[in-house]
Amino acid sequence: MDHVKNYKKKTSTSAKIFSKSARLHINGVSHNIRYFDPYPFVVKSSLGKNLVDVDNNKYTDYWMGHWSLILGHGQKNVKDAVKKQIEKSWMYGTVNEQTIKLSELISKAVPVAEKIRYVTSGTEATMYAVRLARSVTGKKIIAKIDGGWHGYTSDLLKSVNWPFKESESSGVVNEEKIVSIPYNDLENSLKILKKYSKNLAGVIIEPVLGGGGCIPATKEYLKGIQEFVHKNKSIFILDEIVTGFRFRYGCLYPTMKLDPDIVTLGKIAGGGMAIGIMCGKKEIMNYADTEGKKKSERSYIGGGTFSANPVSMTSGYTTLNYLKTKKSTYDKINSLGDYARKELKKVFDGRVEVSGKGSLFMTHFLKNGVTKIENSVDVAKCDSEMLQKYHFKMISEDGIFFLPGKLGAISNSHSKEDIKNIIKASEYF
Amino acid sequence: MDHVKNYKKKTSTSAKIFSKSARLHINGVSHNIRYFDPYPFVVKSSLGKNLVDVDNNKYTDYWMGHWSLILGHGQKNVKDAVKKQIEKSWMYGTVNEQTIKLSELISKAVPVAEKIRYVTSGTEATMYAVRLARSVTGKKIIAKIDGGWHGYTSDLLKSVNWPFKESESSGVVNEEKIVSIPYNDLENSLKILKKYSKNLAGVIIEPVLGGGGCIPATKEYLKGIQEFVHKNKSIFILDEIVTGFRFRYGCLYPTMKLDPDIVTLGKIAGGGMAIGIMCGKKEIMNYADTEGKKKSERSYIGGGTFSANPVSMTSGYTTLNYLKTKKSTYDKINSLGDYARKELKKVFDGRVEVSGKGSLFMTHFLKNGVTKIENSVDVAKCDSEMLQKYHFKMISEDGIFFLPGKLGAISNSHSKEDIKNIIKASEYF
Repeated sequence: MDHVKNYKKKTSTSAKIFSKSARLHINGVSHNIRYFDPYPFVVKSSLGKNLVDVDNNKYTDYWMGHWSLILGHGQKNVKDAVKKQIEKSWMYGTVNEQTIKLSELISKAVPVAEKIRYVTSGTEATMYAVRLARSVTGKKIIAKIDGGWHGYTSDLLKSVNWPFKESESSGVVNEEKIVSIPYNDLENSLKILKKYSKNLAGVIIEPVLGGGGCIPATKEYLKGIQEFVHKNKSIFILDEIVTGFRFRYGCLYPTMKLDPDIVTLGKIAGGGMAIGIMCGKKEIMNYADTEGKKKSERSYIGGGTFSANPVSMTSGYTTLNYLKTKKSTYDKINSLGDYARKELKKVFDGRVEVSGKGSLFMTHFLKNGVTKIENSVDVAKCDSEMLQKYHFKMISEDGIFFLPGKLGAISNSHSKEDIKNIIKASEYF
Repeated sequence: MDHVKNYKKKTSTSAKIFSKSARLHINGVSHNIRYFDPYPFVVKSSLGKNLVDVDNNKYTDYWMGHWSLILGHGQKNVKDAVKKQIEKSWMYGTVNEQTIKLSELISKAVPVAEKIRYVTSGTEATMYAVRLARSVTGKKIIAKIDGGWHGYTSDLLKSVNWPFKESESSGVVNEEKIVSIPYNDLENSLKILKKYSKNLAGVIIEPVLGGGGCIPATKEYLKGIQEFVHKNKSIFILDEIVTGFRFRYGCLYPTMKLDPDIVTLGKIAGGGMAIGIMCGKKEIMNYADTEGKKKSERSYIGGGTFSANPVSMTSGYTTLNYLKTKKSTYDKINSLGDYARKELKKVFDGRVEVSGKGSLFMTHFLKNGVTKIENSVDVAKCDSEMLQKYHFKMISEDGIFFLPGKLGAISNSHSKEDIKNIIKASEYF
């Protein structure tokens, strides 16, 4: 079946509207990854597990707002609380109680969050985490993972996509201050870190590689990196923007008994409204306290016009509060993820590996001798074109939406039936 | 009268709540500038011109959500439209019509916006503008203004606060790629620019210095810089995050017949919801089109999880649409600004200069021989402590809120009576 032809037939209104969007916007989108061929459908509403496009096609959504909507689209508690807040206004530009309520939840759920700073996006949160690490240590080099993704900040825009040695972009200026290490390969990572140890401000790692291929780090790897970093008096930053509140009520790091200095959060912690969070140990975060410091001494950590706005704070609070009172949500979505991984491997009969953890999963079409997915090199060697085709086929024929090429996130609005539908759709691919 | 004592007396609930906030957050706030001594009051709601704190004190607000709320707090059209959007959900993570509607307004009102990219904050918008300028030119140096403020991005974090020669922060890495020039001083600015001309990627300027002291640039200055920049094949960036849609329906630059290559927008264009906008000439913006380009060739310009989310787009669209249909809004608030400037100078009888333009105004207590406010050095020489006292006195005694030390923004919800109240409050200072 010609999937493109079928897609075009059922999304003719999207095609018309997207052509306007293409005239007005770079690539027709407001985020490079939102584009896919021949054109992305245009959404008109969303509810629960579904996105509805302007041609009234309904998709069971696994993109879920860049994986931020763990309770599904338009969840009622969050919706009601947000509407109530909108009545009281959406922008104060000052201290408000909504912020304190969210922070009280976070500081209890995330032990390292002794001090918190809200910002507007994940990109800002990682930018500030890196700046703070440099301020605390007086050193300049930041190490990140090959394939690690921490947003578009200039301070971390390196070794994101294959080939990792090639620049990610023209127009960036401090690539020489970023060093990259291979994920889940402690020996070679330490070799590189040792070379830079004198000037190593910190290491930033996602405990589950997100954009890089949905790959959990091994406990041994993270422990080994942490040990080196702390011995070296550098800063250990865990980027839990994707993983925070994703697998349990709290961060992933305590399950591995890790001791990060700074943690970044976002996505789920904002319930789908704009948020970025940097939190960490008091003695580290206090470098950002500007009081009584000279300009050149302080770590100048901002917030932004929209930081801690009462809508994002309310949306985040209501989401976390729901998860706190219904921790069974995690049992449900984690086991749906296990089921998806197991059944997908079965239905593809050895052709794929399905990586992930809990409610996050990603299918990799094996190629070039790859049998396991342990880092982004393994992912790069797999057949990404086939993955795109597979995802597009489901969009076109099965009413199932993964952003082509990206990992899927199961929300509380999904059921076992939905996962079965993915399996069924995979049978015919 | 002891203003601090009076303030403490009437904000006892705020004091209690802020002490919690201080325990949880760096400086107790989520943006350094939101703190003021002895503690900032805690807001519980806002409507029209008013902020209401948790002790039920009502303040006529001139901070107005970091100057983003040109229609006042909780404006009805915006509120209704946003609530309707919340019903249809708040996060799609995909293309949507709300984005196109806002872009159609912007592209008509801002001629240079041939292509638009939405991001999440102003900090992100200026970061991308700078990256794009470097990509287009292949050069690295960016010039900014002494006292110019473009958010916390590492790419522009230099010469923000007095003394300009001192670093703004520890932990920043590419200060040597940022050059600073004196505002409204064409001769000396050109001297500096000429020194760096071979490696000059671009110049970024606010046409009215915002955080730097509410100072309009002269037409001659901007024209002169632009001429040099274009002759030098560098990129001319105007940061209109504060000024866009502030003085007229559109940007400030067309009133001076300027020809910027890239313009950044935010604040008003998002109606108080999280937004950043980078827009510009097609041939420039197309460098960010990733299609068919190698990693190292493209200008890797992002968006973020929250870019073009339907709530911000709806809030921005409704705000701009209101301003478009009621252009008299500008006549009203601009003339209130003129009135404020004139009467404040009068009431202070030569002790102050009041800078600004249209609905933006800022009082400077003259000192050190300063008689005019033409750049941030003039501002730095003035008595900033007196300004803070003046603003705090109005908070404490008069129910008038300027963020201490910052410029005031008049919104459509303010009246002549409100400005008269500022004048009256100033009489007794």
